[in-house]
Parts: sequence; C-alpha cells; structure tokens
Amino acid sequence: MKIVRARTDDDEISYGGVEPEGIRLYRGSPFVAWEPTEVVIDFDSARLLSPTIPTKVVAVGRNFVAHAAELNNPVPEEPLIFIKPSTSVIGPAAAIRLPPHSKQVEHEAELAMVIGKVARHVAVEDAASYVLGYTVGQDITARDLQRRDGHFTRGKGFDTFCPLGPAIETEFDPLEGQRLTCRVNGVTRQDGVLSDMVFGVAELVAFITGVMTLLPGDVILTGTPEGVGPLVDGDLLETEIEGLGVLKNPVAT
Amino acid sequence: MKIVRARTDDDEISYGGVEPEGIRLYRGSPFVAWEPTEVVIDFDSARLLSPTIPTKVVAVGRNFVAHAAELNNPVPEEPLIFIKPSTSVIGPAAAIRLPPHSKQVEHEAELAMVIGKVARHVAVEDAASYVLGYTVGQDITARDLQRRDGHFTRGKGFDTFCPLGPAIETEFDPLEGQRLTCRVNGVTRQDGVLSDMVFGVAELVAFITGVMTLLPGDVILTGTPEGVGPLVDGDLLETEIEGLGVLKNPVAT
Repeated sequence: MKIVRARTDDDEISYGGVEPEGIRLYRGSPFVAWEPTEVVIDFDSARLLSPTIPTKVVAVGRNFVAHAAELNNPVPEEPLIFIKPSTSVIGPAAAIRLPPHSKQVEHEAELAMVIGKVARHVAVEDAASYVLGYTVGQDITARDLQRRDGHFTRGKGFDTFCPLGPAIETEFDPLEGQRLTCRVNGVTRQDGVLSDMVFGVAELVAFITGVMTLLPGDVILTGTPEGVGPLVDGDLLETEIEGLGVLKNPVAT
Repeated sequence: MKIVRARTDDDEISYGGVEPEGIRLYRGSPFVAWEPTEVVIDFDSARLLSPTIPTKVVAVGRNFVAHAAELNNPVPEEPLIFIKPSTSVIGPAAAIRLPPHSKQVEHEAELAMVIGKVARHVAVEDAASYVLGYTVGQDITARDLQRRDGHFTRGKGFDTFCPLGPAIETEFDPLEGQRLTCRVNGVTRQDGVLSDMVFGVAELVAFITGVMTLLPGDVILTGTPEGVGPLVDGDLLETEIEGLGVLKNPVAT
C-alpha cells in the first residue's frame, strides 16, 4: 500500500491510500488507528504533504563506502547518528530554502524508513515489525557549515532541509537492492543501489533504538551514496527510488 | 510565576501554578491558552513531571570557558549546537538510567530556557519576548561514546539523559549572574555563575532561530560550567539554580 498525506481542495488535511483511480481519504492516521472513507479524490486535486510528521529524524552518516571516500572520511565501525529536527521536514513540491549562512548547500539522496510503533531496544530480527514502510528522502546539507562546525546539527538542521515523500510504501524490501538516484535539472548526480549500505536497515533500527526510543512516525534516514553536489537558486531536485516514486523539490532563496 | 506540570492523586496530568498553600491546577497549557481552576493541591500529593514537553532540546556545547578548557576544547567562535531528542526528557525525581553501552556517564548542570511561542529568525533585542521562562536542566553525557563518535548525538541522546524541572520561573533574568551548582550525594561538583556564559541567552535564541524554528515548549540548554564528572548506580544528583530551585534525580541502571 502507498500511504500519502494530502491537503484537499476544501483545505482539509487527511491521510490517504493510493488507488488506481485516485487517493482514497482515511479517517485517523496509520500510526494510531484509521479507516477508509468513501471519498476518492483525483491525483490532481490533492496537494501532497510529507507523508509523516516525525517527532525526530535520525540520520546516519557515511553509510555508503564511496560517499565516505568522496568526503575523505573513514567508514565508521558503528553507525554514526545525528538528528534533524521535525522543523526541517517538508513534503513534495515544497521549496528547499537556501539560507544566507551558507555558500554550499548540497543534496544527499536517501532512503527514509518510517517507524510504525513505539520502538525501544529492538532486536535486529524483530526490526521489520516496527517499520510501517519506506519513502524517499533528502538530507540537505550546508557543507561549509558542517565542515566549519565539525558537527552536523547546524549544517543539516535548517528549516526545509529534510524533504520526504511522496508516499510511504508498506510493501518494500531494500535488501532487493533498488536504485536510488538523484537528478538536478534533469542531470543525474547520484546513482546508487540500496544494497550497498554499510549498515542495513534492520541493524540501524536495532542500533538507534538501543540508544533512544523511536515514536510512531519517526524517520530514519539511511545514508547517501556518492555524487553529492551543490544546489543553487532555481534548481529542480528530483530524488527517485525504484518502487517508491519520485520526490521533486524546487530550490529557492 | 512558577509553572509546574504534575500528575495528581487521581492520575490526571495538569499544568499548575505554585502558590504559597499549594499547586493551583490549570486547564489547558501555558503554551496555548490556560486558565486557573478552583483546585489547589498539596505539594506532597503531586508528582512533578518535566514542566514542558519539548519537541526538541537544542543544546549548546562549550559555552563556559573553564568547561571547554577542562575537556581540552577551544571556545567556539559561534555557538556549537546539537539536539537532544524529546525522548531523553525526564522530570524531577525520575531516574537517570545508565546504559550498558557506556562506562563513563557524566553530569552537566545547565540553565534551561523554555520557548513560549513559535520563534523563527528572532533578533537579539526581541529574544526575551519568545522565552516563557527558565528551569533547571541537565545534559547527561556518555563521555566515552561522545569521544569515540567525535559527535554528540549518541552520547547525549539516550532516554532519561535530559532531566528538566522542577518549575518554569517566568520572572528570571540570568544576566543577574545567579549561581548554578551541582551536587552528587551532597558533595558539590559544579559551582558556576550564569553570567559567565560565552554566548548569552538572547544571542543563543537569535543564533538558533536563524537556523531552525523553535516551537512552543522547546528548550535551549545553555551550556555547563566546569566540574563535570561521573555518575554511578545509586548516586543522587542535585542540580540547583538560585531562584529556580533544586532538580533531584536518582541514578540507576
């Protein structure tokens, strides 16, 4: 199932399920309890929002060997985690805003896991049952600020720096090695396969929930392959994962 | 005014105001709209919770010169920020849990600012109007993990690693240089004055909201003075700020 969150013509916000003829609206949310309504709206009349509203986004640094190498970093022996705040999340078609603080804002295309229920001290073999599904994400990064601070929070924490969407796919197994690609103005910048992650999705759930409780709707960003590069005012960023669709975001000041 | 959040004898959770004869319960919350009720409960019959439920805690590293020196770090030219997740927050009397991952969990006593309304791109001179008040906080840190990672998120992000309380004092000006002390089992470990901060509270609000939007209830932890040190199973940690009271937390495995 593909789950979206959408603002409808009459300015209501609902979760929905993608069906061949349109988006069926639901009452409630997939994180607590929900049920389908009789209403199906056209794809064109819905404005898609981020398909989850996480309390936090836990991201993983240097989880693809070739990306760690392109930034002259070693591959860590354990997952290297950092937090992007909920206020950085935007949905499909929303603009990534370039802050005046930075002269080097870069894309980092990533697979995003969406947690479905309270997750604490989860074992690797149980991890799948805590995952509602997967969507496409971006860990937008002000590289110059990240380098200057020697830490991730500021450079990756700006409002609009975490596009997510378009939909949460509940039937998706990243071990199949789907392609993750990123295009800027139609030109391919990143092209990796999900099976190249250093730490797999189940290991990440186990590692992170051994530290901090994950809440329904929280997101794990699983790392980016090589090819990160600059974004400038007017760019169109397209991030695509086979089976999950394309997340499109314009870049603006 | 001193604002608390408490669980009452009949297991309800309410915000309250501290009055001479007890805690007056309020309907609603100070972050949206609230009004006093006729109910005043004894101090003894209320179990205090963290006085805010932040969506995020933004903490500032190396904001006291002598603390930066004791860990052999330079004083940064700009505030060095990191995020502690909402899931790390606990209230008065709640136990700090030592994770098996670490052999060196340490206290860091801090002044906590509580944001009262949506704050984005706030100017230094307007900062005070965005602050609901102040409370006592701790930035509990697994120092060995912080050192191993070279990053803050894991070592400072464990569940229970952010005690806050007992109350939010709305009439408090840290520029007066109140004392901030920390005792373990009655022995003083940290003893600083708030006017020794490298970056003051208004500068921190301006810097952080220039990066990320702060939401009502969000917390800024403003840095710790020198004297950080280890916590072990069975310790009683007491953190005190003149005018804000004492935050007491036991330490357990």
